Amino acid sequence: MPAIAGVRLATAAAGIRYADRTDVLLALLAPGSTAAGVFTRSKCPSAPVEWCRAKLKGARPRALVVNSGNANAFTGKNGRAACKFTADIAARAAGCSPDDVFLASTGVIGEPLNAKAFDGVMERMVAGARPTPWLDAAKAIMTTDTFPKVATATARIGKATVTINGIAKGAGMIAPDMATMLSFVFTDASISASALQTLLRDGVADTFNAVTIDGDTSTSDTLMAFATGAAAAHGAPAIARATDPRLKRFRAAFKAVLADLAEQVARDGEGARKLVEILVEGATSKNSARKIARSIANSPLVKTAIAGEDANWGRVVMAVGKAGEPADRDRLSIWFGGIRVAHKGERDPGYDEAAVSAVMARPEITLKVDIGLGRGRDRMLTCDLTKEYVAINGDYRS
Amino acid sequence: MPAIAGVRLATAAAGIRYADRTDVLLALLAPGSTAAGVFTRSKCPSAPVEWCRAKLKGARPRALVVNSGNANAFTGKNGRAACKFTADIAARAAGCSPDDVFLASTGVIGEPLNAKAFDGVMERMVAGARPTPWLDAAKAIMTTDTFPKVATATARIGKATVTINGIAKGAGMIAPDMATMLSFVFTDASISASALQTLLRDGVADTFNAVTIDGDTSTSDTLMAFATGAAAAHGAPAIARATDPRLKRFRAAFKAVLADLAEQVARDGEGARKLVEILVEGATSKNSARKIARSIANSPLVKTAIAGEDANWGRVVMAVGKAGEPADRDRLSIWFGGIRVAHKGERDPGYDEAAVSAVMARPEITLKVDIGLGRGRDRMLTCDLTKEYVAINGDYRS
Repeated sequence: MPAIAGVRLATAAAGIRYADRTDVLLALLAPGSTAAGVFTRSKCPSAPVEWCRAKLKGARPRALVVNSGNANAFTGKNGRAACKFTADIAARAAGCSPDDVFLASTGVIGEPLNAKAFDGVMERMVAGARPTPWLDAAKAIMTTDTFPKVATATARIGKATVTINGIAKGAGMIAPDMATMLSFVFTDASISASALQTLLRDGVADTFNAVTIDGDTSTSDTLMAFATGAAAAHGAPAIARATDPRLKRFRAAFKAVLADLAEQVARDGEGARKLVEILVEGATSKNSARKIARSIANSPLVKTAIAGEDANWGRVVMAVGKAGEPADRDRLSIWFGGIRVAHKGERDPGYDEAAVSAVMARPEITLKVDIGLGRGRDRMLTCDLTKEYVAINGDYRS
Repeated sequence: MPAIAGVRLATAAAGIRYADRTDVLLALLAPGSTAAGVFTRSKCPSAPVEWCRAKLKGARPRALVVNSGNANAFTGKNGRAACKFTADIAARAAGCSPDDVFLASTGVIGEPLNAKAFDGVMERMVAGARPTPWLDAAKAIMTTDTFPKVATATARIGKATVTINGIAKGAGMIAPDMATMLSFVFTDASISASALQTLLRDGVADTFNAVTIDGDTSTSDTLMAFATGAAAAHGAPAIARATDPRLKRFRAAFKAVLADLAEQVARDGEGARKLVEILVEGATSKNSARKIARSIANSPLVKTAIAGEDANWGRVVMAVGKAGEPADRDRLSIWFGGIRVAHKGERDPGYDEAAVSAVMARPEITLKVDIGLGRGRDRMLTCDLTKEYVAINGDYRS
C-alpha cells in the first residue's frame, strides 16, 4: 500500500480485550483535511457513532482513533465518558481540539470500555506515526476477520495524480443499508467536506450497502472518508462540488476502492467458505430487484444449501416469493454459475446434475434470477451459512 | 386423541420420496362440512395452495389429501396437472366431486410430483379410513420434524360438548405472517364457512403468525379448518356468525389448539435444542412490539448466542436497533429467564453471571425486553440456531 500525503498511522496493543495483538489504530491527518461519514441506521447506535455524527458538521479532522475488542455500545453514560476521555487524550497527544478527533470501536457490545488503557499509549503512537503501515492498521481493527482488508487506487484530477487507500473490518452483523462494521478511506485529493459526503453516499449504495452476511445490523457500523488535500502541493485542484466534471476518474476510483473492500468483507463473512454473488434481472424496478436480491441473500435456507454445495433452486423460488415484490412463478428462470437450472416455472429440461455440482463446488458462485417482468436489475454479495458461523457466534463472548 | 364425528382418516406409503414410512394422509369429511383456510403470503405459492384457494369459496369439503416428500411447488403445468389428477382419483374413491377435494403437499420444491403414485392407493385408503388414527395422520405429513404434532380440546356450544383436533408439521422455513408449513384442524361443531374463516383468521395472529424458525417463508404454508357439524346430532346449535356469543368457549378452545400446535412447531424447529419465548413490552404499539420481537426472533446472532447458552444481551440491543421501530437505548431493560441483565442502557449493576448461566442452560428460555416508551406488548416463539440446522439444510436435498 502506498503512502497518502497528509496521513500518518500508528498501532498499539492497549490490552482492551486481546492478548498478544494490536488493538488500537491512530490515524493523524494534516491540517486542512475534510471528513465524510455514513453510519449504522440502528436506532440504538454505539457511543462512538453518536460522537462522530455530532462532530461531522464543520469538522476539521486531525485524528482518528479506532479500537477493537470492545464496541463501547449500550454502555450508557460511561460510554459517552469513554468517548470524551479518549478524544481528550488523543487531542492532547496530537496537538488539536477534542472536536477534531473521530472515534470508532468494534467488539463486544454492552461491556464498559476501559478508555484509561489508551492513556500513555497515545503519546507513543503520535511519536511513532508513519505514512506506510496500512496493513498493520487493517490488522489492528480486526475482530473475527480472518484476514486484514486493504484496497488502493489512483486517479487523475486535472493533471495531478491522487491516491485513495482504504481499510475495513467486517465478518458478522453486516447487512444492507448501512456501512460495514468499520471502514476508513483516505485520499490526498483536495475535496470539500460536502463533495466528499456526496461521493461517499453515492459510492456506498452498490458496494457496502449491497453486502449482507447474516441480515443483522451492528450498532457500530461506520464508514468514514478523509481527504487531506496534500496533493495540492503537486497541482491537484481544490474541488468544491461533487458535480465537478474533473471528479469523473476520481469518482470511479473511489467507488472501486469501496467495492473492493465490500467484496473482501463478503468473502470473509463469519464462517464463510464461499463468496456468493446474487444477480436479479427482469424485476419491475432496481429497487424491487434489490429487495428480491436481499431476500435471497439473507435466506438461511438458500445459504445453508450453498454451504452444502446443493443447487437448491426451489429455495431460491421460496426467497423470491417471500420478498413480497412482483413476481410470477411461471416466468422465473434461475442460473447457478451460468448454468440455467430452472426456466419459466419448471426445472430446466436440459438440467445436468453433474455440471451443476461442479459449479457448486467452486469457492465463488454466481446465482442469477430472471424475474421476467421488467428491466429492473441489481446485485448483492453474500456468503454461505456454515456450521462455523454457528460455532463462532455461539462461543464469541465466553 | 379422541374421534371427531364426521372425520375418518387413513394413511399410506405411496413411495413419493421416503422408503419405509407413510407419506400420504387422506381425511374424509361427512357431507355438510364447512372449510376455512389461510395460506402462505409467498408471491410464488405451490400448486396445491393455488388449488385450495380456488376451491375454498362455496366449498363442500369431502376429502383432504396431504402428501409429504414433495411440495409440488414451482412445477409449472405439471404441478397443476398433478393437483387435478390427485383430486380426480380421490374424488372417484371418495364418491364426490374433484371440487370437494382439498390438497396439500410438503417436501422438496421444484421437483415434479409423481401423482400416479396415489393411483390405486386411494381406494384402499377410503376402504380403511377410521375415526381415530390421529397420531398416524400427524406422522404421515412429517418431513424433518422429529416428533408428530397433535393437539385436542373440547368446548361447550350451547348445551352440547364439541371436540377440536389438530395436527401440524413444521420444522424449517417457518416465519410470521402465514400459517405454518401444514396444519389441519377438525371439529364436529356446526359452524358456517364464513364464521370458521373468521375464527381461523383471528386465531392465527398470535399463534402460528407469532412463530418464526428462520425467517424463511414456504411456498406451501397451509392452515385449514374443517367443521363437520356432526355434533348437531347431540344438540349442538348451528352457528352462522363468528360474533355469536355461544362461540365464546369454542373460540378459546380453538385458539388453544392453534397455540399448542404452534408452540410444538417452534419447539421442533430444525436443529433446535431450546424453545425461546420473546416478550416485548413498553413499545409504542402492539404492532411495533411485534416488529421488534420478530427482529429479535429472526436474528442469527441472537439465536446462535442462545445455542451457545450465552446471555448476550448486547445482540438483543442490536436486534432492537435494527427493527427500525421507536426505541431509546438509554431506556431499554432486558431479562433472560426472569433475571434482569441490562437496565436503562447499561449492564445491570446486580448482574450475576452464575445465575444467568444457570438460566441459559435450560431447554426453555424467556427473553423479555422493556422498550420503556409505551404500553405496546407482544410475544413471539422461536428456537435457537444450531450447527444441526446448518447440517440438516446443507444436506436436505442430496
